[in-house]
Amino acid sequence: MTFTAAQIAMLINAKIEGNPEASVGSFSKIEEAKEGQLAFLANPKYEEYLYTTGASIIIVNDSLELKGKVQGTLLRVPDAYTAFAGLLAKYQQMVSRQLTGIQQPSYISASAKLGEQVFVGAFAYIGENVVIGNGVKIYPNVFIGNDVVIEDNTIIHPSVSIYYGCRVGKNVTIHAGSVIGGDGFGFAPQADGSFTKVPQIGNVVIEDNVEVGSNATIDRATIGSTIIRAGAKLDNLIQIAHNVEVGNNTVIAAQAGVSGSTKVGKNVMIGGQAGIVGHISIADGAKINAQSGVSKSIKQPGGAVTGSPAYDYTSALRSQALSRRLPELEKRIQELEAFIKQLVSEKV
Amino acid sequence: MTFTAAQIAMLINAKIEGNPEASVGSFSKIEEAKEGQLAFLANPKYEEYLYTTGASIIIVNDSLELKGKVQGTLLRVPDAYTAFAGLLAKYQQMVSRQLTGIQQPSYISASAKLGEQVFVGAFAYIGENVVIGNGVKIYPNVFIGNDVVIEDNTIIHPSVSIYYGCRVGKNVTIHAGSVIGGDGFGFAPQADGSFTKVPQIGNVVIEDNVEVGSNATIDRATIGSTIIRAGAKLDNLIQIAHNVEVGNNTVIAAQAGVSGSTKVGKNVMIGGQAGIVGHISIADGAKINAQSGVSKSIKQPGGAVTGSPAYDYTSALRSQALSRRLPELEKRIQELEAFIKQLVSEKV
Amino acid sequence: MTFTAAQIAMLINAKIEGNPEASVGSFSKIEEAKEGQLAFLANPKYEEYLYTTGASIIIVNDSLELKGKVQGTLLRVPDAYTAFAGLLAKYQQMVSRQLTGIQQPSYISASAKLGEQVFVGAFAYIGENVVIGNGVKIYPNVFIGNDVVIEDNTIIHPSVSIYYGCRVGKNVTIHAGSVIGGDGFGFAPQADGSFTKVPQIGNVVIEDNVEVGSNATIDRATIGSTIIRAGAKLDNLIQIAHNVEVGNNTVIAAQAGVSGSTKVGKNVMIGGQAGIVGHISIADGAKINAQSGVSKSIKQPGGAVTGSPAYDYTSALRSQALSRRLPELEKRIQELEAFIKQLVSEKV
Repeated sequence: MTFTAAQIAMLINAKIEGNPEASVGSFSKIEEAKEGQLAFLANPKYEEYLYTTGASIIIVNDSLELKGKVQGTLLRVPDAYTAFAGLLAKYQQMVSRQLTGIQQPSYISASAKLGEQVFVGAFAYIGENVVIGNGVKIYPNVFIGNDVVIEDNTIIHPSVSIYYGCRVGKNVTIHAGSVIGGDGFGFAPQADGSFTKVPQIGNVVIEDNVEVGSNATIDRATIGSTIIRAGAKLDNLIQIAHNVEVGNNTVIAAQAGVSGSTKVGKNVMIGGQAGIVGHISIADGAKINAQSGVSKSIKQPGGAVTGSPAYDYTSALRSQALSRRLPELEKRIQELEAFIKQLVSEKV
Repeated sequence: MTFTAAQIAMLINAKIEGNPEASVGSFSKIEEAKEGQLAFLANPKYEEYLYTTGASIIIVNDSLELKGKVQGTLLRVPDAYTAFAGLLAKYQQMVSRQLTGIQQPSYISASAKLGEQVFVGAFAYIGENVVIGNGVKIYPNVFIGNDVVIEDNTIIHPSVSIYYGCRVGKNVTIHAGSVIGGDGFGFAPQADGSFTKVPQIGNVVIEDNVEVGSNATIDRATIGSTIIRAGAKLDNLIQIAHNVEVGNNTVIAAQAGVSGSTKVGKNVMIGGQAGIVGHISIADGAKINAQSGVSKSIKQPGGAVTGSPAYDYTSALRSQALSRRLPELEKRIQELEAFIKQLVSEKV
Repeated sequence: MTFTAAQIAMLINAKIEGNPEASVGSFSKIEEAKEGQLAFLANPKYEEYLYTTGASIIIVNDSLELKGKVQGTLLRVPDAYTAFAGLLAKYQQMVSRQLTGIQQPSYISASAKLGEQVFVGAFAYIGENVVIGNGVKIYPNVFIGNDVVIEDNTIIHPSVSIYYGCRVGKNVTIHAGSVIGGDGFGFAPQADGSFTKVPQIGNVVIEDNVEVGSNATIDRATIGSTIIRAGAKLDNLIQIAHNVEVGNNTVIAAQAGVSGSTKVGKNVMIGGQAGIVGHISIADGAKINAQSGVSKSIKQPGGAVTGSPAYDYTSALRSQALSRRLPELEKRIQELEAFIKQLVSEKV
């Protein structure tokens, strides 16, 4: 199955630069693409490959100014990455098998209500009073606790566990092994050094269009709800503690963690392995660098921080650069000291 | 179902301050509570809400001195957090469904021995010679390997895997997706750069009253046992390597890790995302700050460290503060140099 | 069942130093071993125990020079750790039950092809067109997606999920809860702050002799493959993002993460909780210290780095040591300033 540049241009609304009859049958990365393949260029780091790639068709940004000759046909669009994503989505729809029906054996409580066009994989468990919307796909080995609600067109990948009483919105994807609604980490210290468990009777609410990566953990609230707002994207192995709120369209990269009761605004970017302490708030649009340790609220919308403990990005970079030059600074201090010592001895 | 302040005071042995007939039907956080709800105040960070909350009843510490007028009825106890935990526990007992019985299909080896009042969820797997105590709850999709022993009243949440030969004590809770007894990470380097696996023939022993969060990993010992002592509390996504020992009532926050053969004392607090190298020991009562990297034994009981590499908490805070002021320090050195330079030129 | 020093020496090709008739029935760590047990000494940190251990037989390196009297019989080999690993492996073979056969209920698609001597545990799921080699062991609750290929003698532990189209080589071990082939974290930002998902249509390829720990995540490529080369060893809770390549015999310790499209060379050592940004390359033999944050390519083969952001190991250690002495450096600057101030006042 092959497509011409002209056909693809129509699909993604692109301007053609080059041969409209160039044709492709598969996708490739620009640095590896061969004749008959389609690639794209969005990250400027890869621009050098544009002039050497064997790709027959390359999707690029309207704004790109060529610095050399390109062999393949260019398709220009406002945003190459988004256009490429759209093409991949159309391709995936064409090739993916349509999952529907109830595989056996699975365990579906008599009191559970399932919508239309639902898929339930083998060894999936659906508890009492669960409500599953239309078009929902529940893969094998998934556990859905009692009283959970899952809305339309959501996909739950294998071995996900959703504890009782949690709510998952529409068009949500939760990848394999993630745990939604495990107990928050709350223990009251006792005089003898032991701990009394604080029961966690709240739940987790995941709004529409959220994606959660693999083996992530989102704890239920002590009371009330831990909330992931619509459009948020959470990567693999992230930790969201009890009573946290993650704002709309906030992105959290792999292995980052947010401690209890912290409120993360919308459109926030949290880098990989970053950590945020509990009981603080992060302003909308804040940028938290990878491996940062955020110990205080970020009040400035769009504020950027880095370091552990984290502070203002620009100042922190300057201090980090200087801390690499500490041996030189110490040497300069030594020279000053030596000079002064000599000065004193001369005076005497 | 509502309860009066007088009734709750009797349950938690509290002194009433205000109207004993005030009544509540649900719980809420103090900053969000409305009429008819019960809240508590333990963290002083939230005291401001005491004077604005709509809660009809608020549990507070005996020691609290009011700084303003409170609308609701106060219930005073020695420790508000513990009293609130106790109330939640009673509430949870009232509302939770009693899980017992063996759901089908599940896989229980003929040689396994199950106690009384046991729950085994659908798709749970119980291997050969496994011994399960009374009142144990094993959720769906759990894997219990051969020769495992689980003592009374322990709860194993969905998709937990417990490898062969491990032992779990009484009143333990293991949250979903955690892996107990996977192979320790031991490989002998060979001359050609490859590695020979060192078989891990030990096991994991988890003593009574331990709680393990979701998607945590506790590796089996090479020989002997990896041990989690009674009362320890381990959060989500933590890593405990082979032959580690974690002491009584030690608390390890999410995403922290302890490397092989390290011995962590009792009543230690380990912050989130902290890491501890292998083959060292951590004194009782030590405090390890979030994101610390502990590379040497902590010998001082109660010693506190922070930073990566970690050292004494107070010194580290001072150095961290100064490292933020490095640009200023460099400027001061430059001024000294300029002055000296001028001094020299004047002399000449 | 006991063995004499002479018998074990023959098995591991060792020189006997002491009584060849000394006999043992079990293994122990050198610091805990008693009469009738076998121990080994490889890590020099433990040498002190050699002179106090109760072990009847101790395997040591040829090169070891004794600093005192040893009670037990010594078996000298070129590499004690490797010899001990070999003995453990023989022991494990003797005692482990041979797993074969298909437990019921399990779900095996009609189009799947299984080799000989295969084990499929209860509640394991094997999708359409899956190909499973000879001697493969698939534990309970495992999910194998459509079109996956698993080659001979590979072991897949409980609750592992392998998404569609991934390939796993020979003699691979994947521990419980790991997720292979979940979607890479790719989203195209839109003008309104929301994100459009970039479909991830590539796969994961794991070559021969790889070991993956528990609850690790290895994402599928956007296009092409995420590749783990032969002999690599990956610990628990590690994150490998889309389109990453991990080289031969590279070792990645627990909770470390590698971001998208980064190419890690062969024989690289990555410490626990280290993070590597995307779109860079790490030279063969590089050493990345625990908790490092690698933000630039490492071009020097064998180059060692530490810190966050990471740089040259030796320089970084020097700067870290100085940063602990910052209070002293500031004091020295203050003294210089005071001196100069006095100098100026004297001049006037």
